[in-house]
Amino acid sequence: MTGELEFIAGLRALATAGAARGFDDDVALLGDLVLTHDMIAEGVHYLPGDPAESVAAKLVAVTLSDLAAKGAVPIGVLLGYCLCDGAWDRAFVGGLRAALAEYDCALLGGDTIALPHGAPRVLGLTAIGRAGARVPDRAGGRAGDGLWLVGTLGDSAAGLAVLLADATASGPLVEAYRRPRAMIAEGRALAPQASAMMDVSDGLLIDAGRMAAASKVGMAVDLAALPLSAAFIAQRGNDRAARLFAATGGDDYALLAALPPGTEAMVRKSLPSGAQLVRIGELVAGAGIALHDAGAPVEPPESPGYEHHA
Amino acid sequence: MTGELEFIAGLRALATAGAARGFDDDVALLGDLVLTHDMIAEGVHYLPGDPAESVAAKLVAVTLSDLAAKGAVPIGVLLGYCLCDGAWDRAFVGGLRAALAEYDCALLGGDTIALPHGAPRVLGLTAIGRAGARVPDRAGGRAGDGLWLVGTLGDSAAGLAVLLADATASGPLVEAYRRPRAMIAEGRALAPQASAMMDVSDGLLIDAGRMAAASKVGMAVDLAALPLSAAFIAQRGNDRAARLFAATGGDDYALLAALPPGTEAMVRKSLPSGAQLVRIGELVAGAGIALHDAGAPVEPPESPGYEHHA
Repeated sequence: MTGELEFIAGLRALATAGAARGFDDDVALLGDLVLTHDMIAEGVHYLPGDPAESVAAKLVAVTLSDLAAKGAVPIGVLLGYCLCDGAWDRAFVGGLRAALAEYDCALLGGDTIALPHGAPRVLGLTAIGRAGARVPDRAGGRAGDGLWLVGTLGDSAAGLAVLLADATASGPLVEAYRRPRAMIAEGRALAPQASAMMDVSDGLLIDAGRMAAASKVGMAVDLAALPLSAAFIAQRGNDRAARLFAATGGDDYALLAALPPGTEAMVRKSLPSGAQLVRIGELVAGAGIALHDAGAPVEPPESPGYEHHA
Repeated sequence: MTGELEFIAGLRALATAGAARGFDDDVALLGDLVLTHDMIAEGVHYLPGDPAESVAAKLVAVTLSDLAAKGAVPIGVLLGYCLCDGAWDRAFVGGLRAALAEYDCALLGGDTIALPHGAPRVLGLTAIGRAGARVPDRAGGRAGDGLWLVGTLGDSAAGLAVLLADATASGPLVEAYRRPRAMIAEGRALAPQASAMMDVSDGLLIDAGRMAAASKVGMAVDLAALPLSAAFIAQRGNDRAARLFAATGGDDYALLAALPPGTEAMVRKSLPSGAQLVRIGELVAGAGIALHDAGAPVEPPESPGYEHHA
């Protein structure tokens, strides 16, 4: 973690262009284009046994999720691919085709390389989206805003735990781990009203902490309010430990937004049917994340979520 | 090679958007923006012992070279980075800073991940450039055009051979391998006149073959005309074997252009001082590359250059 933080601080010092948004965001802005790049590695972001189709689907979803979090609509992607064996590569192309079709997004180009034999594969995707009228960053949250979430938490982390116990497991939690969904329509509904927005990729607590730090506010987060799926509750229960697991698991790709008072109705009108918008806390003066469980203070967990250890 | 060709054929079938240029190019075009993505891997595109600064310089140069080959001017990059140890990461940031400053190019964003312990690192870079009035592709070459080159051939491959024999070696060939240069100004001078253009990354013969295939023409290439550096000749000599080595080595990042008759003077007027524009052959009716050595036919070498073996 220290290594990553130091490295990113070094990069931030380089990223002085306005388009880089001070590196406090997952995207860059060039005119009305929103650009983002994500990388996933075998054995880190997906399991060696995951089907190639689902690896392609996950790569597309996690990258487009950064566009969703800015209210942008995907235009196209550039793929960085490491060749594997022919069957895997073919299946990956099939999964890529399906995923891009789902988001009405074009493959524009990329690069293909071979790795030394036996090396874990690393896949990169750059996504370009068209910005809406407003592109919320992480830094615009204000004390008094509500903290809202669209999507459920913990499903992916629960699915990973299931797979680690039984590599042949299947079901909705495994699907949540293997095939997250980028919430493009939901992001478009939130962006015009959100004072700050991001996707939850490394875990709610760590990502909310980043929004709070960028916005120079504190946050009160209510564990009892976190939206959990029926599949999650069936697998992990619904007690405080389960909710802390959901708050720190990561790989969720839910959308986290700071919404000023009085904007909820507008957002609800624009959300696609079936989308659940849930208030999980509020932005307050101060700094850091204060956790509570329906009012009772909760000690923050030792690890707030997923950080990359070198 | 078969694996890569099949994989790329599968991707081409997906890349139906006009911006993808039919996948017959190293870049995508969105409005007046030119986008490209390159990946390099430890032990494949650079040596584990190469200094981190030079790995950053090479990553930037090989990616921006694709913009140069379209006559575009770099605007910014997104970095996909795999954390290593702190010292290497710090040195990489220093090299990245210097390389981006050299090209007046901004760091706009990216992603940082950790790899499993001991995995060879994979680095990705997406570059965005501003297109000039004309963005030559690979497919516009016509029989009767001259085949021209800016830059020398073989230096990088010769430098790699030197390093493989002695990891502590230094000198201009090693520098050519470790720190190629993207010929931005040269590309801007060529692009308005070129009927087809690309950079030489996998070796002259293979890349010229790609231009010939995309343009549906043949090419006659004169080995005797290939521009070699003094350092290259001092190391490898100047006979036919040396020239075949230079024609197939790859990692050159010279610019290869098809120029219609009568355009040479205009190009020379725009080239930066010191740039050498050399005619190495011509485009002819037919297909494939016909090699000759000052008129005498030469058998094509067994391997035309660098292709990725899965």
